Amino acid sequence: MVASDALAERMTDAAPLAGSAKSPRTQRGERTRRKILDAARTEFGNRGFSDTGIGDITRRAKVALGTFYTYFDSKEEVFRALVRDMSEQVRVAVAPAFADGRGTLQSEEKALAAFLAFVGEHQQVYRIIDEAEFVDPAGFRSHYESTAARIAERLEEGSATGAMSAPRDPLEAEVRAWAIMGMNVFLGLRFGVWGREDSAVVAEAANRLLGEGLKPR
Amino acid sequence: MVASDALAERMTDAAPLAGSAKSPRTQRGERTRRKILDAARTEFGNRGFSDTGIGDITRRAKVALGTFYTYFDSKEEVFRALVRDMSEQVRVAVAPAFADGRGTLQSEEKALAAFLAFVGEHQQVYRIIDEAEFVDPAGFRSHYESTAARIAERLEEGSATGAMSAPRDPLEAEVRAWAIMGMNVFLGLRFGVWGREDSAVVAEAANRLLGEGLKPR
Repeated sequence: MVASDALAERMTDAAPLAGSAKSPRTQRGERTRRKILDAARTEFGNRGFSDTGIGDITRRAKVALGTFYTYFDSKEEVFRALVRDMSEQVRVAVAPAFADGRGTLQSEEKALAAFLAFVGEHQQVYRIIDEAEFVDPAGFRSHYESTAARIAERLEEGSATGAMSAPRDPLEAEVRAWAIMGMNVFLGLRFGVWGREDSAVVAEAANRLLGEGLKPR
Repeated sequence: MVASDALAERMTDAAPLAGSAKSPRTQRGERTRRKILDAARTEFGNRGFSDTGIGDITRRAKVALGTFYTYFDSKEEVFRALVRDMSEQVRVAVAPAFADGRGTLQSEEKALAAFLAFVGEHQQVYRIIDEAEFVDPAGFRSHYESTAARIAERLEEGSATGAMSAPRDPLEAEVRAWAIMGMNVFLGLRFGVWGREDSAVVAEAANRLLGEGLKPR
């Protein structure tokens, strides 16, 4: 599943994409690549990977089949590029939450609210990232490992400033990051994809749990 | 993904299975059905739904093709039965955690530890339930909705006794249940499937987060 905080590391590591011969060199080329990715999102999101053909994507994008191969070598490659692209779109959508600083409960709440709103607008994001478990397992795992690492980094900043309690050891820090990622992913599924309750209200309730826990104070 | 607390409701609702003409009527029949389900778990777990044929399952189970059709009508049906079966196995594995009562942080910790241990022993459970999103979407959604409802029920008992804080409203109660389910699912993925850290230690760290939150006390 998707996580609320996308993959700056992976995007940076994605040199083969940015630097490859197939990377568009002009604004027009970038627009065409974008049209193909948007069409791929709709097609893969609606039909799934195996029932989607490259022809379905090019027809929806209104580009020639040869044009597709100017940008991508295969259906697998456009799928992998799409996963990275959606991750980057999530990251961009959530980034403003950290404009005033990271490692606070407030910024985590804003990030979750932004994520829920994004998922509500882009329903296919779950189906595509979830299908990556089967189509691109290494990419799927790396998606979550990098996202958890970024959450862990924010929590570390939070305990350094005293805004958050400190974990007892590195294992507890990792448990916290994966637990928070899981919360966000399932809240996105329930309140972004399956239901459309007010993102800010859901994020506030989730943040009370994250801040205060269940033990009566 | 799988959730730590399986589907008593769904199992109860699964009357078509229990009551169908294809339900085994003898102990020997039950053993044969079990052999087919175990083989299906291995085959679907290793190859995925689309690359698995009924012949792969019967060969592994060492039963004749005709015997398969005594119990199941199709590959889809054995897959759906397998999802229910794995859910039930999780439920049984986790149930002892609630022997001394539900709605306490201690019982939630024991349940998570039992779930992590179960997942460690049954690695295919994630791949199978995750693939249900594509093969049996209604079953996938119902799996999580019922699981969240059961968690919500336990939390309600916890706030009734004062062992847990009370949610402000029904939405907050639902947010809590989905957040906890997501935590458990992702901790299972990280610490049960991808890594094998000590279940009890992971569950203890997760339970501190659930009990106390991140806000310094």
